[in-house]
This record gives sequence, C-alpha cells and structure tokens, in this order.
Amino acid sequence: MRILHHLWLSPLSRKVRLILKEKSLDFEMKIEKVWERRPEFLALNPACEVPVLVEEDGTIIADGNVIAEYLEEVYPERALMGTTPIERAETRRLIAWFDQKFNREVTANLVEEKMMKRFLGFGEPNSAAIRAGYQNIHYHLDYISYLIERRGYLASDSFSLADIAAASHLSCLDYLGDVPWEKHEPAKQWYARVKSRPSFRPLLTDHIPGASPPKHYADLDF
Amino acid sequence: MRILHHLWLSPLSRKVRLILKEKSLDFEMKIEKVWERRPEFLALNPACEVPVLVEEDGTIIADGNVIAEYLEEVYPERALMGTTPIERAETRRLIAWFDQKFNREVTANLVEEKMMKRFLGFGEPNSAAIRAGYQNIHYHLDYISYLIERRGYLASDSFSLADIAAASHLSCLDYLGDVPWEKHEPAKQWYARVKSRPSFRPLLTDHIPGASPPKHYADLDF
Repeated sequence: MRILHHLWLSPLSRKVRLILKEKSLDFEMKIEKVWERRPEFLALNPACEVPVLVEEDGTIIADGNVIAEYLEEVYPERALMGTTPIERAETRRLIAWFDQKFNREVTANLVEEKMMKRFLGFGEPNSAAIRAGYQNIHYHLDYISYLIERRGYLASDSFSLADIAAASHLSCLDYLGDVPWEKHEPAKQWYARVKSRPSFRPLLTDHIPGASPPKHYADLDF
Repeated sequence: MRILHHLWLSPLSRKVRLILKEKSLDFEMKIEKVWERRPEFLALNPACEVPVLVEEDGTIIADGNVIAEYLEEVYPERALMGTTPIERAETRRLIAWFDQKFNREVTANLVEEKMMKRFLGFGEPNSAAIRAGYQNIHYHLDYISYLIERRGYLASDSFSLADIAAASHLSCLDYLGDVPWEKHEPAKQWYARVKSRPSFRPLLTDHIPGASPPKHYADLDF
C-alpha cells in the first residue's frame, strides 16, 4: 500500500492528501514526529520534513510540491494543473503564493506559534507574530475574493491545485478558529464549495488529541 | 525581445538567467527595485518579487520556480530536469532543497543581512544571523560533496536544474567572498565545472556599484 508520512496541521501534507483523493489513489497515513529526527525517516528525506510519499514499489518522493508534480505526471487522468503551459504557470504561481507567501505571512505566524510551540514545549508563543498573522490574513482573503469574482476558481474556471493549496492552509487555520470568514463573503463561498468536495471529507474528521477544532470546522454550511 | 526583470544578487533571478542561456534563448534584463513597489511591476506580479519573465508575445510568467517549469515545458529541446518522472522528482527535490532550505539557512542570513540591509538602509546587519549563515554553509557544502562523489552532478550523472539552483545561491555568496571552498574540495571541484560553462560567463561579469566581488569570483581556476 502507498504510504504518506504526514503531520496533522501541516498544510503541505493536507495538500497531498487532497490530491491523492481527487485522483482516487489509495494510501495509508503515518504520523511522523519530524522533531525527533528518526534515522529511518532521515533516510527517506534528509531535509527531515513531511510530507513524504512512498509508492508501493518503494519509490520515495519527498517535499509537498515535488509530490504534487510527480502525481500530476504519473497519474494524469484527473489533471489538476491545467492543460496548457500558460494555465499550468498560473496554477503554479498561485501554489507558490500560498505555500510560500501565505505560509510565511499567515500560517507560520498562527499555526506554528499557537500549536507547534505549545505541543513541542518551545516556550511562549510570540504575540507580535500572532498579531501579524491576524492582520495579514485579511489581505490574502481579499485576494481570494478578487480572483473568485473573476474566475470561479482561483486559477481559472476549473477546480485546480491552486484551490487545493489555498484550502490546505486555510483548513489548518480554520481548525484553530482563526479565519475571519464573516468579513470575506466571496472567499467564504469559495471555501464552502471546496470543503463540500468528497476529497475534503477526511480532513474534516481530523482530531488532534488535546486540541479540538471549533464546531464550524466540520460544518459544510458554516 | 524577451525581458527578464531581475535583481543582481537574487539567486532565483540568476537561476533563470542560467536556464535561458543553457536553452540558447535570447533575453534582455531589467533591474527591478522591488522595494519601491512600482504599480507597473505589481501588475506583472502582485507578489512583487523578482524574477518575472515577459515573453515576446506579452505572456507574463512570475516566480523563479514557475518560470523554470514553464521554460522546461515550452522549450524542451535542451531538457534540464531529467527524462523520467522519478528523475524529475529528484531534480525538483534538490531545487527545493537549495531554493528553500539553503536559502533560509544560508543565503537569507548572509546576502540579505550583509547586502540588502546595507543598500536599503534597513539598519545594522544581525550578527547572530550572519554567524548562523557561516556555520550552516558547511553542512550544505558537505551535502554537495556527498552527492557529487556518488553521482557526478547533483541529481544524477548529468548537469541539471539542481546544479543550476545550487550554483545560483553559491555564486551570490561567492560574490561576497563567503564560501569556504578550501574546506570542501569535492564541492569546489563541482563548482569549478559549473562555473566554466558558457552559460555562467555573464554572471561572472556582474558588478554591483559600490560592492566589488573578491578577485577569485570571476576566476575559473580559483
């Protein structure tokens, strides 16, 4: 069986889970406590980061973005990046927007400060970082609304890996109750559509011991 | 004419310059002072980062990694990522290693602290960050040596985008005289080979006003 090494609130792990589901590929998940730096896991990925995908034949693919490109090449029946080089460039631009810019400006400031530090005993959260995260998220939700009002989905009028990348980050923040949906109606409508997809359902049943999500997290009509 | 919007010590801009040269594609360069946040440039790339490539027909491609994938798709004659999905996954893994991990642990600590802060008047360099950069670079040069001794080039026995990504970062650091080559002989031999390629020559003539490179920077036999 294909194995995905992951962490619960890792947006890149969620991205790969969604891709695998969208492409109807079976897999098992294994939690990897990357901070333990297990030699067996370092042998899979010397960068010691999740996600890592191990195919049934033993092929090891490390790094969320690399896994996404690999799955798109090897299982192209359900294409998630667009059909022309220009469409794929726009999809990839938005993937980079969320996995890098949004991650740096929002996810790292909220998920890492509020959850990872607490679970790993890395000391008090940095309140200036948390404030920055709360402030920055509005700009990104505005950008989602701007794109949605022009295109239907983020990269084009079709659901794509850009939507998956954005929703992976937002679902982690939504688990913390940290997304001000009420002030961003078009973005909220878009997220409701993404959240209703069958591929999304397993994410909504995630439960981290000692840190329950707010009631609206699993609610499709939030 | 194809235009590349770039900055001198931006590793991602250098990466695209090298790819364009390797693929024998003509281009002009325009410096973009991204910190000025020009509306005309924001219209090209709302993330306001270099590099941005504008093709002769007006097609705009933003983000160093997105440009690399786009050029590989549209100009495949000189393939730089490998020929099978698994080879491409290994090339992409190493590109991510250098553009993200190396960038965070070394380039940001040295190039941004020592050069960008100084030129932009953002205050004194952070000496703890600079010390961390000097310390971290050894681990990465060891990793390059480890790979080279097994494969010839970083991702396989052929020159690829992984070599281009790594050399783009190292050439910025070498411009500052910050690469301890003498302690990492296999990595040094590899860099000498990469530096000798015709595609690399234009980078060696870069001269930033007020910040000359050390004498060995342009020396192929350093």
